[in-house]
Amino acid sequence: MRDHGGDLDRARAVHGDGDWLDLSTGINRLAYPLPDLPPHAWTALPVAADLAGLERAAARAFGTGGPVVALAGAQAAIQLVPRLAPPGRAAVLAPSYNEHAAALAAQGWTVDHVPDPAAMEGADLAVVVNPNNPDGRCWTPGDLRSLAGRVGRLIVDESFADPHPDLSLAPRLGDLGEGAVILRSFGKFYGLAGLRLGFALCGPQTAALLRRLAGPWAVGGPAIAVGTLALGDEDWKRATTRRLLADTARLSALLDGAAGWPTVGRTALFVTARTGDAAAAQARLARAHIWTRRFPYDPGWLRLGLPGTETEWRRLAAALAG
Amino acid sequence: MRDHGGDLDRARAVHGDGDWLDLSTGINRLAYPLPDLPPHAWTALPVAADLAGLERAAARAFGTGGPVVALAGAQAAIQLVPRLAPPGRAAVLAPSYNEHAAALAAQGWTVDHVPDPAAMEGADLAVVVNPNNPDGRCWTPGDLRSLAGRVGRLIVDESFADPHPDLSLAPRLGDLGEGAVILRSFGKFYGLAGLRLGFALCGPQTAALLRRLAGPWAVGGPAIAVGTLALGDEDWKRATTRRLLADTARLSALLDGAAGWPTVGRTALFVTARTGDAAAAQARLARAHIWTRRFPYDPGWLRLGLPGTETEWRRLAAALAG
Repeated sequence: MRDHGGDLDRARAVHGDGDWLDLSTGINRLAYPLPDLPPHAWTALPVAADLAGLERAAARAFGTGGPVVALAGAQAAIQLVPRLAPPGRAAVLAPSYNEHAAALAAQGWTVDHVPDPAAMEGADLAVVVNPNNPDGRCWTPGDLRSLAGRVGRLIVDESFADPHPDLSLAPRLGDLGEGAVILRSFGKFYGLAGLRLGFALCGPQTAALLRRLAGPWAVGGPAIAVGTLALGDEDWKRATTRRLLADTARLSALLDGAAGWPTVGRTALFVTARTGDAAAAQARLARAHIWTRRFPYDPGWLRLGLPGTETEWRRLAAALAG
Repeated sequence: MRDHGGDLDRARAVHGDGDWLDLSTGINRLAYPLPDLPPHAWTALPVAADLAGLERAAARAFGTGGPVVALAGAQAAIQLVPRLAPPGRAAVLAPSYNEHAAALAAQGWTVDHVPDPAAMEGADLAVVVNPNNPDGRCWTPGDLRSLAGRVGRLIVDESFADPHPDLSLAPRLGDLGEGAVILRSFGKFYGLAGLRLGFALCGPQTAALLRRLAGPWAVGGPAIAVGTLALGDEDWKRATTRRLLADTARLSALLDGAAGWPTVGRTALFVTARTGDAAAAQARLARAHIWTRRFPYDPGWLRLGLPGTETEWRRLAAALAG
């Protein structure tokens, strides 16, 4: 099993049960309020008209005029990407989210880990996470459009891009033909990761292939109902973006001030900080039942998602001061 | 797009909006009552311990001691089956559920449609739906165990087997090694098809491969929470099985008595009847906003799921008499 955030099982096994504050992921802790769901969302096979409504809401929210394919989470899209073309040489930005390289290698791709998009030239398939997880690096749509012409396929994982719409390649995707695919997550920004909902934005041929590979009824009824409503809620998106941006700055300042951990990088959903010893730092917070994320490639980096309520903020501040 | 039940969109397009009674699927219309879900089922990435709890509940419910892999519906399992081995010659029972052959062919398998399990001998992969959809044919565990030794891989789709536990190969699956895989549906018997939950029962190596192909977080939080509870509810299962068996007999009698459509075959979740002209019969019921299913390979067959409430039964009876 690969390392992931959200692995609270492991924390519980070592540090005991209790009221854990899980900051090991980049999931918004103040979730979109769940609406009452129509009974058929639970009981019936999802109908094509409802799915199409969800995909239209997603297209509007992401600002694309091209096809949007709803899938059971950005992870489901990551599982399908390696099957879009015969295995060849893939270049994956590093460090970044580890499931891209893992899924490509499992399907027979040769995977090069490269430090930046410039080093991807000539790859059959290139994966850029933008903004990047966990170091928060960003590329402009212009950077990525010029990269698109120099690789076979360009996959841009925009799982953390909702609060950073200026970074998104979605509005220009139509210019890039079938070569470019954007992946979007629903669960992180909307705080509903249990729903399993994500999207691929791509050209029409790629969309048809993704739909065939995913098979019918790939997205559940509750995800369709909640997703359609949430993606259409511009007010909530605006207010949440404002809050998340302010809270990331607050978290950066707290980590630096209270613990002496300067920020390595951040998005509006997490902060990665440089500690002296991430294993010790993680264990110290875990004793206060706060779970965080560290990374095998850097002994000092610790990533924290944003606390939600003021109670959670105070709890983190106390643990950092303790 | 292939033909499916549950395609109410199409019915609405032709016969108008309104209060449709969808009998085009084999989904129990009196669903397992939804419990209150813990918030983390919606907000958090599903944790391994909860998923393991669901799979243990499924193993107990299905009577198997071997691995159970939870997936996003029996359909998700059908999408993965063609990737369990390099493409070769597959034998698929016919007529039956059309997604098996479609998924195999899409992955490069040569698919033979065969009339019964005896004709499958020597196939690299054989698919039997038991009880079969839509003709209700059944095979005993003994029949299938002897078939398992004569084909490369045996896939037994038990999507309609919950109310027919004596037919299930699950208790004997351990004797068959890695060659045999059983697929189970959650949504049909429990009436919650929107949840997207199904299972593969198989040997440990096949389970590991299926988990790798499906990727992490393949099942949503609400599905894990509801599924764990429902699969452990023996009382509900017993009462529902009794009701469904009685209701299938009632539906057979109604179709034969009121419309002169004798039963071709049935399970406890649907009845397939022989009409003089299935297109005309379907259209007649559709004018009363009752949707049913017909099949391209037989101009007379019409399949109806069971009505749920007495109001629904009266509505069907009136439409058949009208």
